[in-house]
Amino acid sequence: MSRADIAIIGTGPAGISAAITAKVRNKNIVLYGSRDLSQKMQAAEEILNYPGLPRTSGKAMAAAFEAQLKDLGIEITEKRVTSVYAMGDYFALQLSDNTMAEASSVILATGVVAGHPYPGEEQFLGRGVSYCATCDAPLYKGKDVTVIASSPAEEAEADYLAEVCGHVRYLPLYREQPKFTHAGIEVIREKPVEITGTTRVEALKTEQNSYPTSCVFILREAQFPAQLVPGIETDGTAVKANLQMCTNLPGVFVAGDLAGQPYQYIKSAGQGNVAAISAVSYLARQARKNL
Amino acid sequence: MSRADIAIIGTGPAGISAAITAKVRNKNIVLYGSRDLSQKMQAAEEILNYPGLPRTSGKAMAAAFEAQLKDLGIEITEKRVTSVYAMGDYFALQLSDNTMAEASSVILATGVVAGHPYPGEEQFLGRGVSYCATCDAPLYKGKDVTVIASSPAEEAEADYLAEVCGHVRYLPLYREQPKFTHAGIEVIREKPVEITGTTRVEALKTEQNSYPTSCVFILREAQFPAQLVPGIETDGTAVKANLQMCTNLPGVFVAGDLAGQPYQYIKSAGQGNVAAISAVSYLARQARKNL
Repeated sequence: MSRADIAIIGTGPAGISAAITAKVRNKNIVLYGSRDLSQKMQAAEEILNYPGLPRTSGKAMAAAFEAQLKDLGIEITEKRVTSVYAMGDYFALQLSDNTMAEASSVILATGVVAGHPYPGEEQFLGRGVSYCATCDAPLYKGKDVTVIASSPAEEAEADYLAEVCGHVRYLPLYREQPKFTHAGIEVIREKPVEITGTTRVEALKTEQNSYPTSCVFILREAQFPAQLVPGIETDGTAVKANLQMCTNLPGVFVAGDLAGQPYQYIKSAGQGNVAAISAVSYLARQARKNL
Repeated sequence: MSRADIAIIGTGPAGISAAITAKVRNKNIVLYGSRDLSQKMQAAEEILNYPGLPRTSGKAMAAAFEAQLKDLGIEITEKRVTSVYAMGDYFALQLSDNTMAEASSVILATGVVAGHPYPGEEQFLGRGVSYCATCDAPLYKGKDVTVIASSPAEEAEADYLAEVCGHVRYLPLYREQPKFTHAGIEVIREKPVEITGTTRVEALKTEQNSYPTSCVFILREAQFPAQLVPGIETDGTAVKANLQMCTNLPGVFVAGDLAGQPYQYIKSAGQGNVAAISAVSYLARQARKNL
């Protein structure tokens, strides 16, 4: 498996800025995210305070970023990173297509997830709570499963689960009417409140009901950082970092909304740059160690 | 005297970004610096890693910034801030034209000064060392004075000193041949090494000579932060700050090169934004205190 110098997770302004600076510094990078760039960014109507782009829109900014990525030959790898494991002198990344990747350093720029984990979510992680349909569907062959989905992008995941598992319940946290290629997926418009069980998950409780299930797939645009990177220090929402965007884990850097407020494009872009330069310094120190 | 909500010192990417965000947040700001924007910025040939401005030049970036300032109705006040004094619930700013200004909060974005203060510089500050010709020339009426000048912009200051003081010696730290409107200014191409004296300055030593003088005017594009803002904590070169760009002094924020490495445009612009938002929060807290 070829090992990237820097894996950058996220394609908002922080991840893109990190990728641009790392590439200009001649690093071998892999940038995980969506080719649509940040959904949130696309939705911004008018941005007044991004120096250099007067009175721009999220769409125009995303277009400018895309052109710059293209100009520098930076590609976006459209896979979700579901876990990052520190392996000593490198990191193993579990991807949403159930493959693994390796990188010598990691920049987290996933944005923040609104809210908190559901009660029971952390307790039952790996025991009936999963963040990756592709990875874990085979464990629930023929069994009833439940999907909590933050965006229409998860509908394809539910279709896949319907092929492999038994009955699939689908709780969309968005307004659009879900569309599936697979018949028989049950759409439930109720708010999830708790995941219950004893040694393993037994049910998903909503405000109205309790649905027995063998697994709850929680599919979010971004994950809570402590679940993405075991061992990373947070203040609850944000990953703790210093001004050099170093986290408590050597080789892991953070930028953008995930590093805390304010949630601002230019701040995210600035921190992405700093995280990339800190990663470059880290790689140089590691290389000297191995001399 | 009208009091600004936020005084922003410096017109590089950090100061401009701070001004833009503070203005968008409806604050009454004053932006001190040069209408030419940052000299350093103007000189940059190609900038590859400013997201949103692919393959740009310092000149093009400065032009984009200027257009944005104009669009938002932000003016640059072309005065140098020579000292910032904390007065309790506001700050008093001493300006290079020997006037004072007031602000409820301050954002330092002056960039960094290369090197260190001269031996004797801090010891004799206010006792024969001055950073402001306009302010202090009258104290040396008819006396011999010496100017250490970092850029041709200081030649006008030397001309003014020649009107008021006695003999003026001028040590340019730049290559261009100085031009004066006033005859008799002595240009000395030697490297200053120390300011000497007992209770007051008595001489400026260079590598070759020692010149008796009653005052050494040290005119730099930016000042060492501890001299600009008495009491501010530094690590020697950079002002110490947290991720919110707060310094040890409540109401004083920092952004850009002055906050430490890396020295990068996009990092400076990001920190300027954060400093502005932190200043806005500070002002809101102060306002609530006075309810």
